[in-house]
Amino acid sequence: MSYLNQITSPTLLINEQLTRANIKRMADKAARNGKKLVPHWKTAQSHEIGNWAKAYGIKEVTASSIKLAEYLCGQGWENIHIAFPFNILEIPRLNYLAANQSLSVQVVNPVTAQKLADELAHEVGFFIEVDAGYGRTGVHIADFGTMESILRIAASSDKLNFKGFYLHPGHTYYTPDKAGIYEQSRQALHMLKMKYQSEFPGLVTRVGDTPGCAVTEDFGDVDELGPGNFVFFDLMQAELGSCSKEDISVCLAVPVVDINQERKEILVHGGGVHLAKDVLVDANGNKNFGEVVFLDEKGWTIPADRSYLKSISQEHGLIKASDSLMATVKVGDLLGILPVHSCMTADCMGEYLSLEGKKIDHCEGASWK
Amino acid sequence: MSYLNQITSPTLLINEQLTRANIKRMADKAARNGKKLVPHWKTAQSHEIGNWAKAYGIKEVTASSIKLAEYLCGQGWENIHIAFPFNILEIPRLNYLAANQSLSVQVVNPVTAQKLADELAHEVGFFIEVDAGYGRTGVHIADFGTMESILRIAASSDKLNFKGFYLHPGHTYYTPDKAGIYEQSRQALHMLKMKYQSEFPGLVTRVGDTPGCAVTEDFGDVDELGPGNFVFFDLMQAELGSCSKEDISVCLAVPVVDINQERKEILVHGGGVHLAKDVLVDANGNKNFGEVVFLDEKGWTIPADRSYLKSISQEHGLIKASDSLMATVKVGDLLGILPVHSCMTADCMGEYLSLEGKKIDHCEGASWK
Repeated sequence: MSYLNQITSPTLLINEQLTRANIKRMADKAARNGKKLVPHWKTAQSHEIGNWAKAYGIKEVTASSIKLAEYLCGQGWENIHIAFPFNILEIPRLNYLAANQSLSVQVVNPVTAQKLADELAHEVGFFIEVDAGYGRTGVHIADFGTMESILRIAASSDKLNFKGFYLHPGHTYYTPDKAGIYEQSRQALHMLKMKYQSEFPGLVTRVGDTPGCAVTEDFGDVDELGPGNFVFFDLMQAELGSCSKEDISVCLAVPVVDINQERKEILVHGGGVHLAKDVLVDANGNKNFGEVVFLDEKGWTIPADRSYLKSISQEHGLIKASDSLMATVKVGDLLGILPVHSCMTADCMGEYLSLEGKKIDHCEGASWK
Repeated sequence: MSYLNQITSPTLLINEQLTRANIKRMADKAARNGKKLVPHWKTAQSHEIGNWAKAYGIKEVTASSIKLAEYLCGQGWENIHIAFPFNILEIPRLNYLAANQSLSVQVVNPVTAQKLADELAHEVGFFIEVDAGYGRTGVHIADFGTMESILRIAASSDKLNFKGFYLHPGHTYYTPDKAGIYEQSRQALHMLKMKYQSEFPGLVTRVGDTPGCAVTEDFGDVDELGPGNFVFFDLMQAELGSCSKEDISVCLAVPVVDINQERKEILVHGGGVHLAKDVLVDANGNKNFGEVVFLDEKGWTIPADRSYLKSISQEHGLIKASDSLMATVKVGDLLGILPVHSCMTADCMGEYLSLEGKKIDHCEGASWK
């Protein structure tokens, strides 16, 4: 029985072959450059997809929250890194998890370092997150006072172990000059390594973001790569040049509920609660909340002439349809939608359906919540 | 023990007193005008909040999807209306639910009507959704051919029972002239009632949207009101004039993880997966993803000087902080965030915590999924 026969409501499809190819490509690139790939699992959030990743030599992952870290515990990961400035209210939960799982956290201020030093019950690693221009989070790259204050506190603790420096240059999403940002990131991490490696000979540096990792070949002396989105990719990444649309490995299957011949619009059940509301806006101000692909028993194909979601609300999606789509579409059909931001879509959906008709787990849909 | 002691991670708070007051105000308004209030439960999505609503005479609710309808079945609702152009792939599920629950659906084309007429196993009511200018969905108000085709098919079925006309004038969200839109909506529904009531003496008309229902007093001969968001309200509604910020009855509690004194910014754990990405943009292009309130043991208070989320990503929220907030905030504090779009925030969070420290159910977090 085809996976298609299982679908009556919005369903997130995953193409295992494309997903594995995406993981393998990045793993090969890391290996070719002598880097350790530690993918950010905020995108996949899945045990099963973790098993696929392990086949390509991936041994550690990163979580975006302690909730996701908890979900990933006990799945054989050598370490789970929580790549979010640590929330001191979660120290009891961290202690609970660290009893049985190697974990590391991210520290950006001395208050957090001190609280961890005072209250950790088990050994936990930490990265200092640094900011070399993105401006969202992290210790400013030139703020050695704060870094040394954190390191001094950690030195007083036998539980809080310094691992190195973490940099997320998220402005690669907004800046055309990705090579320039990567040069800046490499230099910043190199400078920190030079400055601190005599004191901490084992320190590592990690940089992570899909647009950068996908297009860069020269990672300099950075030790570890931590991109996340590359596992699935999405329309945003295709627009940024990180991938082609053919690489996108998830799509939302949506039922057609109405067709407006006059306006050439198709109404589908698929809105903000399924896709999230991330949007691409073109030079003329036209919004694109996702693009139509044709579903068949083997998966999906990208049509030559584009149809796209011009607007979404909580449950509704309104497709601006090409002539060829209008010519064939029927009420009750299923269409596929390539998402603008796959991490958010997967988080909304909380589960995947493989093209083999198998349900694939996601943290948000797990019954343990 | 205060509810505050239960919170270590992003948590959606609900003020029961404010929520009840919001429901009572709309119920009183409906009663004063001799209308039946059938709230759209896509906002609350909760059994417990449904029990609160029943105390104000509310006997029927509306669902945005068959999934939500399924969640609401068996909770004593006299009818559950699924206010989405019916998806014919879900007829088996509709038949399953309709065996034990009075349900109605929305029909916008003859294909769907025919399929329902052919395959319904139990009686189900239906509204024809009409479009009087919003342009998202519904049969165009002047397209009598389509309406009569639907009615003719329904007449051939002893299961598919015509209830009336449904109109969601969602353009009140985008158009300053809400009174004008309501005049148009009233007239459209009045015209349909005049045209069809001799043939269908029991037909009712329903109009629903919070901005309109909140500010209009004259609903003409419309029979039923179906707003949803008014149960909680949010910053979008406050900006539209539907409510004051003091009426907003949910807020997201978020932990402070870092403070940037120089930029007067506060980093919190609270991002797109918690709030959704709905945003208000002011005349200068400044984005507002939510506004800060101060939490205390009794609930929250709105500070005189505004602090707001200037940007969010998947898990991160970055607050542009007022001087008074900067003067007192500490790492490890909890702040409250009034959401821009409470329906989406509740859908992301899948659960509420009351100010009495009690967990309140939401369809998305329910273990039955």
